[in-house]
Amino acid sequence: MPLYRATLAYDGTAFEGWQLQTRPGARTVQGVVEAALARLTPDGTLVRVHGAGRTDAGVHALGQVISFELSREMTPDELGRALNGLLPLDVRVLEAGPAAEGFHARRSAISKLYRYVLDVGPVRLPMRRHTAGYDPGPLDAGAVRGAAEVVLGTHDFRALAAAGSTVRTTVRTVTASRASFEADLLGTPGATLVYEVEADGFLRKMVRNIVGGLVAAGRGRTSPSALARALAAGDRTAWPPPAEAGGLTLVRVVYGAAPGSPARPMPG
Amino acid sequence: MPLYRATLAYDGTAFEGWQLQTRPGARTVQGVVEAALARLTPDGTLVRVHGAGRTDAGVHALGQVISFELSREMTPDELGRALNGLLPLDVRVLEAGPAAEGFHARRSAISKLYRYVLDVGPVRLPMRRHTAGYDPGPLDAGAVRGAAEVVLGTHDFRALAAAGSTVRTTVRTVTASRASFEADLLGTPGATLVYEVEADGFLRKMVRNIVGGLVAAGRGRTSPSALARALAAGDRTAWPPPAEAGGLTLVRVVYGAAPGSPARPMPG
Repeated sequence: MPLYRATLAYDGTAFEGWQLQTRPGARTVQGVVEAALARLTPDGTLVRVHGAGRTDAGVHALGQVISFELSREMTPDELGRALNGLLPLDVRVLEAGPAAEGFHARRSAISKLYRYVLDVGPVRLPMRRHTAGYDPGPLDAGAVRGAAEVVLGTHDFRALAAAGSTVRTTVRTVTASRASFEADLLGTPGATLVYEVEADGFLRKMVRNIVGGLVAAGRGRTSPSALARALAAGDRTAWPPPAEAGGLTLVRVVYGAAPGSPARPMPG
Repeated sequence: MPLYRATLAYDGTAFEGWQLQTRPGARTVQGVVEAALARLTPDGTLVRVHGAGRTDAGVHALGQVISFELSREMTPDELGRALNGLLPLDVRVLEAGPAAEGFHARRSAISKLYRYVLDVGPVRLPMRRHTAGYDPGPLDAGAVRGAAEVVLGTHDFRALAAAGSTVRTTVRTVTASRASFEADLLGTPGATLVYEVEADGFLRKMVRNIVGGLVAAGRGRTSPSALARALAAGDRTAWPPPAEAGGLTLVRVVYGAAPGSPARPMPG
């Protein structure tokens, strides 16, 4: 069967995360995408979709990548238009097309880039409450940047994994970890923390836990060196609590060889 | 009774506009603010609130100004904290305090600044669908800027008023009308149109009608000179349809003399 890939953007606010859940009625991104694809098969057959990142409830994507087999031959343009016609408005296909043989959105990924946006100030701005985290602050910028450096490199990140995770290994390599400050919607300089982190893989809640560490360091409740000790000790209880989901976006998934035909924007 | 003022930010998505409506059950910003203020009076008395701008359903605010009389003496800090404790999360008080005698949020206003954000590109980004308008484009930047200049100055804007408006005069003076292009959330250069307009007052749907004209000119469906003729002729049918509400934000209201104590940010 022809193998396809697509890049998705979604607003995670009204989803219980990416992954299908056993609980009936749970609205997931995977679920609505599989439902749309089933309508493209002659008999409504299930089309299993693999996503590069299993984003949690409330987490957004600008560059989630999916792969799936479909019994029909469709041009990139046909596939993108058809999916955007069937999907709800909080999920959009940015580009779609045939994938190279053996391509798997998750297993073929080399690295992923996540961005976390945190508004800092005396009042939480209403129109950003689902797309940015919030902390009253003030945050010490130097301490935030120092905390961001703690996670750089190869570490056993078990101190930053969600409780109950069962993964083969908790060792990951973080290749970029950058904190910067921008003006907020009111134009207040330095009132929005933008954190970007790239790694060969992420444990569940790992980015939100990192951001929790950045905020705690910025507030003076911990220090970069105390965070480094908690990371080295693998001590989840010594690491600050995670930042909320709404500030997090899966921005980009990187693959080695080109995964298929050149990406092109889709109408819709 | 002590007279107060406050600056509000709100996410207009879940409101049927600013103004109280006769239809029962309509959720309006004025309604939730008056309900919060009633809880600050000893006997739940109605507190009538005046807003500087009567924003439509779906329109947002970063700097709506309100005035009201309250039978209680409250410090700015007490008033801001109390209101933010009583208001829903889609409305926040940015600052509050006593107002100068005779101050009226709407009648004392000298000018208002609105901003319209319009995403342009092949796919509408889901996380912006309530806070930015959308057009597939492409838009000719020169034609958009030319259209923005058409409304500068003093004109009878009846061609840009919503049907059925009953106002004393439709003459307004636009003192700034600027269109610029920025990168969108995907980082695509020029993919977001940001339009800012300042005037001594606005007719209902006037900004959305102006933006409708900008988009039509950018798409080549009309021209700045044709828009100028429609404006001069007061011909509503010759002016393009309005842009949708979600892209519009009331950014700032300007007053002459300081309307009260210095603005200060409120916790909440």
